[in-house]
Amino acid sequence: MSSYHNPDPCKILIDAMGGDNAPLACINGAIQAQQSIENVDVFLIGKKQVLLDLISKQKLSFDSNKIIDASEVIEMDDKPAQAIKSKKDSSIVRGCELVKSKEFSAFVSAGNTGAMMAASTLIMGRLKGVSRPTMGSFMPSAGGITTVFDVGANVDCKPRFLVEFAMMGSIFVKEIYKIDNPKVGLLSVGEEDTKGNEVVLEAHKLLKMSKLNFIGNIEGRDILKGTANVVVCDGFVGNVVLKFGESLKVLLKHLLIEYASQSIFKKIKVGLLKSTLNKVLKSIDYQEYGGVPLLGVDGISIIGHGSSTPKAIKNMVVRAKEMHDKDIVNKIQKALSEIEIE
Amino acid sequence: MSSYHNPDPCKILIDAMGGDNAPLACINGAIQAQQSIENVDVFLIGKKQVLLDLISKQKLSFDSNKIIDASEVIEMDDKPAQAIKSKKDSSIVRGCELVKSKEFSAFVSAGNTGAMMAASTLIMGRLKGVSRPTMGSFMPSAGGITTVFDVGANVDCKPRFLVEFAMMGSIFVKEIYKIDNPKVGLLSVGEEDTKGNEVVLEAHKLLKMSKLNFIGNIEGRDILKGTANVVVCDGFVGNVVLKFGESLKVLLKHLLIEYASQSIFKKIKVGLLKSTLNKVLKSIDYQEYGGVPLLGVDGISIIGHGSSTPKAIKNMVVRAKEMHDKDIVNKIQKALSEIEIE
Repeated sequence: MSSYHNPDPCKILIDAMGGDNAPLACINGAIQAQQSIENVDVFLIGKKQVLLDLISKQKLSFDSNKIIDASEVIEMDDKPAQAIKSKKDSSIVRGCELVKSKEFSAFVSAGNTGAMMAASTLIMGRLKGVSRPTMGSFMPSAGGITTVFDVGANVDCKPRFLVEFAMMGSIFVKEIYKIDNPKVGLLSVGEEDTKGNEVVLEAHKLLKMSKLNFIGNIEGRDILKGTANVVVCDGFVGNVVLKFGESLKVLLKHLLIEYASQSIFKKIKVGLLKSTLNKVLKSIDYQEYGGVPLLGVDGISIIGHGSSTPKAIKNMVVRAKEMHDKDIVNKIQKALSEIEIE
Repeated sequence: MSSYHNPDPCKILIDAMGGDNAPLACINGAIQAQQSIENVDVFLIGKKQVLLDLISKQKLSFDSNKIIDASEVIEMDDKPAQAIKSKKDSSIVRGCELVKSKEFSAFVSAGNTGAMMAASTLIMGRLKGVSRPTMGSFMPSAGGITTVFDVGANVDCKPRFLVEFAMMGSIFVKEIYKIDNPKVGLLSVGEEDTKGNEVVLEAHKLLKMSKLNFIGNIEGRDILKGTANVVVCDGFVGNVVLKFGESLKVLLKHLLIEYASQSIFKKIKVGLLKSTLNKVLKSIDYQEYGGVPLLGVDGISIIGHGSSTPKAIKNMVVRAKEMHDKDIVNKIQKALSEIEIE
């Protein structure tokens, strides 16, 4: 079993210094989370005096006893490996340590992604049998639940890593989205077994032998269709696809503006269309999903988008609480140990 | 110089048996091309009797002297390497041979992509200095012209291949879209030089030393922004992104239907929105761009989407004619030889 245990009540620690809108967005996110989520105790970690001054200046209300002081900040452009070594009193390093020491159930941060991954992996430790922890992401789709593992934690993968991602992703989807026997699809350039790069071809064979519900290769076009519940790929491809998907709104907006500029009549049509489209596109808004969990580490670590808003921060806490309540870490460890026995 | 020369008038051969809608879509595409494009002589290759019967049955008008008989068909699910060896009288093999022998200026096919790449490479031959021919694609973007090289010809790449793609893509964009000194971006997981997988990190160094207008790494979100004119990546990533992008419409449609189902008022709103959105999305319709050229082979080979409509087939002929008129093949060869001398 993992060394992780499930502290009760659920205490969640938010990195107050992480993200482009920190610390204000983090404070507001923490307040929203505390107000709207039941059975959770929300804390902030960061430069305490800075946070207290801001809370007072903005006339916000957050219990000062729930702010943990950390004197350093890992900046968005700091080099991860170096930063977690040199900034021992940073919110990210201390946050991970406080989960490791069981003082907190989970740590969430919208800060430097690489540093969060490195600190979580090194400080919380990897679960037994995990070669590489994986960062997955929810994807909007036309049918059911679609998640993609990995989306950036591992840019160079061995075939075995992809199988581990599939395994961890399946447990995550089963527990969080209540889908029994989630469908696992291997992202490739064609549906046939013979299509793919070297790593994918080998991973395909391993996945076929596994006990997972492997439906074979899927293509880029299948992601948004919802063909698979767990889309498996290396973190390079997953990261590119995720960021590409996020930018679709930018293109749509541009196309609409261009169309509107053609005539006054078209401008009116686009004006009418805009609010509907915004509502429709809400379901593909990352803020709705909050952050993504780093699976395979011995603790709960939720990594958020750099541009996280208070709402996104709040939803990261929702995600962290789900991970806690459903005991995902221990379930992953159990599944992995069973595999090793086989 | 390449052995390729520029036959005049421009004679373009269309694979009548290629694609999901063949042969009818190919015949109709050929007719549209012949009627709408000036200074081009359009031919079809395929099972002549089948084509003649269909033309007669559908009361179409296409000169039977412009149909070249080929008794075999490479099916969409045939294995490329095997098919081009065993089906010597297929439209794809014969089509490539007829470009090699200078009887035609270009061959276009919406058939088996792998077979088209393999036949073009083996029969037409690679240009001197080309490790791997590359298949690029146009991408819609919010700013200027964006193309992606490679989108599927090469799933496992060495760093050097990516530099060659950048070079060939730059010439293509310069000539076809009249952009001097096109901006080259290397697709990666972060903008910093240090971000990427092993191949990308090495390719970054090589691109930096090249004479190309290299703007550094770009991310998935930059593709649709139009940050670079030539986005360079391996064919695995490019293929996944291309197909993912094509499926955007499917998701949008689904989201609209879901929204409309919520109330009669919303249904009316979506009804009003639909035609505008269809017009707006027209610019991201692959049919508008026709096929994609295979660059680096000693001849003009245009590869189309399996689901090509007559319009897409016609636009493949437009693309082929541009490649011919602007003498792209010789220009690529010239640029590559200059590099080799350096």
